[in-house]
This record gives sequence, C-alpha cells and structure tokens, in this order.
Amino acid sequence: MIEKDTIIALATPAGSGAISVIRISGLKSIEITESLFKSKDGSSLMSKDSHTITLGEIVDKKRVVDEVLISLFISPKSYTGENVVEISCHGSSYIQKEIIKLFIDNGRRAAKAGEFTLRAFLNGKIDLSQAEAVADLISSNSSTSHKIALDQMRGGFKNDIKELRQQLLDFASLIELELDFSEEDVEFANLKELKELIHKIKNTISVLIDSFAVGNVIKNGVPIVIVGEPNTGKSTLLNSILNDERAIVSDIPGTTRDTIEDELILDGVNYRFIDTAGIRTTKDKIENIGIKKTYEKINHSSIVLFILDCADTNADKIEASKEIINQISKDFTDKKLIIVANKIDIGDSKLIESNFNNHSLVCISAKEGTNIGELKKIISSCVDINEINTDSSVVTSSRHYDLLCKTSVEIENVLKGIDNKISGDLLAIDIRQALQHLGELTGEVTNDEVLGNIFSKFCIGK
Amino acid sequence: MIEKDTIIALATPAGSGAISVIRISGLKSIEITESLFKSKDGSSLMSKDSHTITLGEIVDKKRVVDEVLISLFISPKSYTGENVVEISCHGSSYIQKEIIKLFIDNGRRAAKAGEFTLRAFLNGKIDLSQAEAVADLISSNSSTSHKIALDQMRGGFKNDIKELRQQLLDFASLIELELDFSEEDVEFANLKELKELIHKIKNTISVLIDSFAVGNVIKNGVPIVIVGEPNTGKSTLLNSILNDERAIVSDIPGTTRDTIEDELILDGVNYRFIDTAGIRTTKDKIENIGIKKTYEKINHSSIVLFILDCADTNADKIEASKEIINQISKDFTDKKLIIVANKIDIGDSKLIESNFNNHSLVCISAKEGTNIGELKKIISSCVDINEINTDSSVVTSSRHYDLLCKTSVEIENVLKGIDNKISGDLLAIDIRQALQHLGELTGEVTNDEVLGNIFSKFCIGK
Repeated sequence: MIEKDTIIALATPAGSGAISVIRISGLKSIEITESLFKSKDGSSLMSKDSHTITLGEIVDKKRVVDEVLISLFISPKSYTGENVVEISCHGSSYIQKEIIKLFIDNGRRAAKAGEFTLRAFLNGKIDLSQAEAVADLISSNSSTSHKIALDQMRGGFKNDIKELRQQLLDFASLIELELDFSEEDVEFANLKELKELIHKIKNTISVLIDSFAVGNVIKNGVPIVIVGEPNTGKSTLLNSILNDERAIVSDIPGTTRDTIEDELILDGVNYRFIDTAGIRTTKDKIENIGIKKTYEKINHSSIVLFILDCADTNADKIEASKEIINQISKDFTDKKLIIVANKIDIGDSKLIESNFNNHSLVCISAKEGTNIGELKKIISSCVDINEINTDSSVVTSSRHYDLLCKTSVEIENVLKGIDNKISGDLLAIDIRQALQHLGELTGEVTNDEVLGNIFSKFCIGK
Repeated sequence: MIEKDTIIALATPAGSGAISVIRISGLKSIEITESLFKSKDGSSLMSKDSHTITLGEIVDKKRVVDEVLISLFISPKSYTGENVVEISCHGSSYIQKEIIKLFIDNGRRAAKAGEFTLRAFLNGKIDLSQAEAVADLISSNSSTSHKIALDQMRGGFKNDIKELRQQLLDFASLIELELDFSEEDVEFANLKELKELIHKIKNTISVLIDSFAVGNVIKNGVPIVIVGEPNTGKSTLLNSILNDERAIVSDIPGTTRDTIEDELILDGVNYRFIDTAGIRTTKDKIENIGIKKTYEKINHSSIVLFILDCADTNADKIEASKEIINQISKDFTDKKLIIVANKIDIGDSKLIESNFNNHSLVCISAKEGTNIGELKKIISSCVDINEINTDSSVVTSSRHYDLLCKTSVEIENVLKGIDNKISGDLLAIDIRQALQHLGELTGEVTNDEVLGNIFSKFCIGK
C-alpha cells in the first residue's frame, strides 16, 4: 500500500507573497533535489544532516530558476516519515509553477489532495483521526474549533478508545480461543470482567456521542436565527454586532481573513447569523407563509433572537408577538430564545419589558450601538464553553459520530447477549463488529474507500 | 538609520494552505521566539546553529497555539542580515493571526511593507537595485521578466555601473584635490584619461537606456492592439489564441495563477491583448470617432493586428481598409503591423492577399483554429528575445531609466566642459552631479524619501 514514488506540491497558499514553500516527499527526494540544485557553498545536499537549511539555486540545466533555501527532513524524522525536502522559493506564481514543472519533467509526480498526510498515516506517523484533525486545524477559524482540532491532532480521545479497544480485543480473542477447544457452548470464564469493560466502553462512547451536539456546532459555527417583523431593525442589528468585531479582526496587518458575511467570533466561539425575511403580525392574524419559513430556519438554529420594535408597539402587536414567542418556546424547547427590544433611542421599552419578563430580554438601540455589548454577553452565555474548554474530548467529525453510534448499537447487543446468556460464538460476532467500528475510528482497521474519502477532502500540498 | 526592534509578518501568501511561514527579524528574534516556544526534545533554540530546524509548539502561557517548525538564521547569515526566525505553522488564517498577535502582544512590531528587504539593504546584504529586483521577481509572470529580475537580483548591470562610478569618483576626488592646492584654474593632468572614462560611461548608459524600451515592455507585457471592423471575428480570434495556451498553463495542479483576461505568454514573453471597439469603413468614408480611439490604443501598443474578413470583401472595403492600413503604417513607423485575413473557412483570401502582399500577412480561421500557430509565430518574431536572452543587461525600472537619463545629461555636460576647457571646479560640479544619479541607482547614495518610495511598493512580509 505504501507508494514509493516521489511526490511534489505547493504547500503554502497559492498566490503572491514574499516566499512560497514547495514540498517534496519520497525515498529519492533528496537525490532528485540535489540534481536540480546548486548550493551556494558548493556543498552537497546528500552530506547534510536532517533539519538543516541550505542556500542555493534551483537550476534547469544551466538556467537559474530561482534562489532558494532547501530544508531537509531525513526519514523517519519528517511529516510523512519519508525523506522530505522543502524548497523555500520567491513567492511568485510563475516561479512556483516553474519549479514544480521542472521536478515533474524530471520524473516526479504532482501530489494528490492530502497525499502527504496519507503517507504520514500509512507510515505510522499519525493515526487516522489525527490526520483528519490536520484538515480541521487548517480550516479552524475560532479559538474553540482550533483547540478541538489541535487536541485531536495531538491524540485527543483516540488514546482512550485505543486502550479500550485493545482490552475488548483481548476478550474477543479469549472467547474465540475457548471456542476452538470446545465444541459445546462454553460459559465464558471472565464474564463479570467483560461486562465491566463493556460498561466502561459504553459510558466513554456515550459521553463522546453527546459531545457531538456541541462539537458539530463549534466546528461549523453556532447558528443564530434573527426573527422579527420587517423594519424592526434586523439588518442594522446584524451590522452593529458584526462591524464592531470586524474592526478588531482586521487590526493586524497581513492577516485579513476571508470574511464570511454573517459570521462572528465571541469568546472563541464562532456564530453564524441567519437572517429571516421577517414575519408579519397583522392585527391578531399571523402570516402563515412567513412563520412557516421562519420555523424551518429556527429548527436548524441553536439560538433565536426575536426582535421587537420599541417605537412601534401597541396591545395588538404585543399580543400577536406573545403568541408567536410562546409558540416558539413550546415547539423548540432546546433552542435558546432571546427577546431583543430594539430602537430604545426613539421608543419606550416598558410595554415590551412588562410583557416578556419571563424571557431572556435585552433592550438595545442597534442604530446607536446601545447595549450591543450586553446582547453579545447574553449570546455568549448561551453556549457553555466550559464544556469545551475543560480537557474533556469533543467529537466534531460526523464520520466519528457515525462510527461511535454504530459501536454503541453493537455494545448494547453484547450487553443484551450477556444478560440473555447467548453462546460465546454469537457474543464474539457482536464484539468483533464493535471492534471493527472502533478500529475504523482510530484507523487501526481501514480500507481504501475510507481513506480515499477522508484524504480527498484535503487540499493539495497537505 | 538601522532599526533595532524586532519585526514580524506573514511571509507566505494570505489564505489557507498546508503550511504558512511567519518571519521574524531583529537582534532579539531568537530570544523572543524561545520565550514563546517549547521544543519537542526539550532543547533550547539559543543553543542551535544557524540554518537548523527545530520541531515544537508555540505556546501562549500554557495554551498551545500550534505545532510548528522553527528555522533559525543567525546574523549575518540571513536575508536581512539580522537574526531571523521563520515559523512554519499550519496554513490557517486563524493560526497565522494568532501567532502574529502573540508576538505583537509580547512587544514585537508588525513589519511594514518591504521592511525585511529594507533591512537587508541597510545591513549591506543587497544593494538597492537588487532589493528592487526582489519585488520584480515576485511579480514576474513570464520566463523573460523572471530572467531579467533574477539577473538584476544577482547583480545585473549594477556591478558595471558601480565600477565605472568608482573610477569617476576617483577622478572627481583628484580634481578637487588639485583645486585645494591651487587658487588658479588648473589644467587637469589626466584629461585624456578622464575623457576616455566619460565616453565609456556614456556608452554603457546609452545601451542601458536603449534597453528600457524592450525592458519596460517585457516587464509589463508587450501590448498588442487588435483592430478591425465589427464582426470580423476579433473576440473569436482572441479566444482562439488564449484558450489554446491556457490549457497548458492550468495543466499543473496547485499552480493556478490569477489569469488576467487577455494575457498570453509566448516563448517566454508576456503579451497583453487590447481589444478595440472596431472601426467601420462605410463605403469610402471612415468613421472618425472609431478611428480616433483606435489610434490612441495603437499609440500605446507595440504590435497591431489588423483583422480583415475574407467572407465579406469587396473593392470598396478593400480600398477603405488599405487607406487605414497605409495611414497606420505611416503614422506609427515603430509599430509592427500584422494583417490577419480571418474566416478562410467560409471566405476567399485571394483578394486580401493580392492587395496587402507588401505587409506581414497571415490567413487564418479563428473559429476552426486554422493557422493560429502561424499567427503566434509571427507575433513572437516581432519581439527580438535574443536581445533579452543574451547576457546583456536590460533596464525594466522606470526609476532606473529616469536616473540613467539624468546621468546621461550630466555626462554630456562634462564632455562639453572638457571640450570647452572649462575650469576644474565647474567640471567637478557636473561630475559630482553624475555621481549623485549613479549613486542613487545603485543605492550608494540614498535618502529616506527614495527608500520610502521603493519599499512601500513591496508587499508586507517581504
């Protein structure tokens, strides 16, 4: 399975910059680089130690392609575990292309997406969930998603799982061994011990499965839906919340990130704002189409901001709003609902405050920026970051979640089997099934399809 | 003038990739990195040699920011000549920002545009024209512009200029010394020798000034204007020429460059195609507005492609076209004019061929792709790349061109002065003036304004 050819790809983002790094991995990567390189001091790359840097020129026959720095990582002390060369060249697209082309013309192969990390996995440098964490780490955009990815890359919950899996594997082997020696059904010797282990696995998995609800939301951003009648100031509010933070983000030169319009990071958690077309409460009648669409969006959110207009309140409106809000509270018990009384600069919030005091409520002026900080605090308090910032593990990958759920089913079957005193061979089948799922999680059991699926999502050069 | 604080910036292009490199330069850069870094093997960065790489973690108090590789370049063996640290981190915008922020929070300063290269210049690692070549190198997008930038970075014509300047400086000193010893006008001793040197300088400068016409065009792309009546197939032709090449360019994965719509690289030279609205030749009357705008574009181009439609020819049209073409040939003697007879798949080129046989002419079908290769060859032959690809130096910077022209004027004054036997002190003034311009070219004479101007055009991180 381990491919021996030498692969090459741009490792830094495409485009212009001061420098770019081109990565080469494979048994012959140093020899090949040597043949296309002329060091400044006349020394040979082959004579250099691992983790050293050599100045020189990439040369195509007699033509100098660029002045570069060559970093050497000699197997197994490299990212892929193979011999790795990193060429630090001038950051022009033309030069990047020329150097990669030169190596390809000399028999090297352009790396496929994620191929460096795949090799790291195949060479035993990292396990599968660590490999997956690398992709998460690169795409993380908040301190929490970053922390989770980094934890996972450094081992995360995999070590626990691996240990439990090994213990379960020992039991499975023991059961199968006993089966080999007896044609009759055997009463398994250490049934009590097995049961204890299965319970331990069940609990560990159950905690991890529960963590996915938070983990998934952290990875993809906490969805916040903004509900309210037209002209209550929904988009002014959005701008008011977002602009404030954007200024901070763009404070550091050279670090502008691709801003997605309605994303905001508060206390290290990423929030995704979802605007709604607005629902109308005409007299006591609620526009049905509006509420239906809004309901769909609420269904996919974690937090609901319900905006009311202090400058446009009357008994009818309050009544209608109350009706919707109560309905939302009833229908979506798992969502955090925040009532936002907007336009306190031109209206009076008393009527709203007295009617909705049984809810989380904040009075603001989006236009003037009044109490926006307070609103942010309330939003922030909806997500329990302690749950994440402690050292407990969080599952963020739907692949992991899926495998954990499948394992959970098999574990339940094993438990039932023990209680029902089923035969050892049947018990062994269920255990083997659980082992299979756990193994796929850690990458101890794997197949080309799974690998292809995981690594094709990587960028080229990783 | 040499600043001693430690500066930091992202060196690789902004955005997501496998890795990113953050560059730190300054006397204390290694100590500072050490204080925010924990090596994997527990070793200290301070104990490491120059040009070595250390694996470890960037840590903010106890929080791990990222697993990174630290490359050390100890003064003076670095790009800036100072102690330089390069942090190779995971390629996420979030991580880039976090690391830079961490260093800034710890008292470092975000680097200004071009500040690393400015320091390299101030520390005598490179001269000014080499520094300028770095920016050109990064923005070069064809083999020729790349070659010129690389030549310039590696010394280029600066060494010749420097030597000539030194000789001239010696003469100036000698003249001034003689003036010190005599109140009377002195007959300068080595007048013949001075005259020879001045002629040598004059010739060198004259060749360089002449090279700017080519150099500027190479750097910015050779402008080709496409002229013709509407519906003669101008845009089909453009697509036909461009698409063919684009496929080749995008062949290598991971190297997609920001394609500027109408650019094409042929034999290592970059061509910029400029479309015109089209001129109308109604009967024998030429639309005046059309021709005026087209004339402006021709004026800024090097090559003119004049498209004629084989499927729509008659005596009147041929006459009108002839009139325009002759006018263009007469008005723009320095432009290369190519007549392109298009649509040979549905029309007959004979009438056009017989009427325009005194011009460069090619019969094509843009739609079918017939003879496009031939057309490219003719375009390619318009630019004498031998002029560039030999080892002669080419001036591409308008700053250099400007200084060479100014030097040329002063040199002429010196020559005239010698011929007119003007006094030594007056001669010295002109020589000093020429020395000043030459010095600004090489950076031996400089001032803050000039430096500010040059380096502000760099990107941050360079």
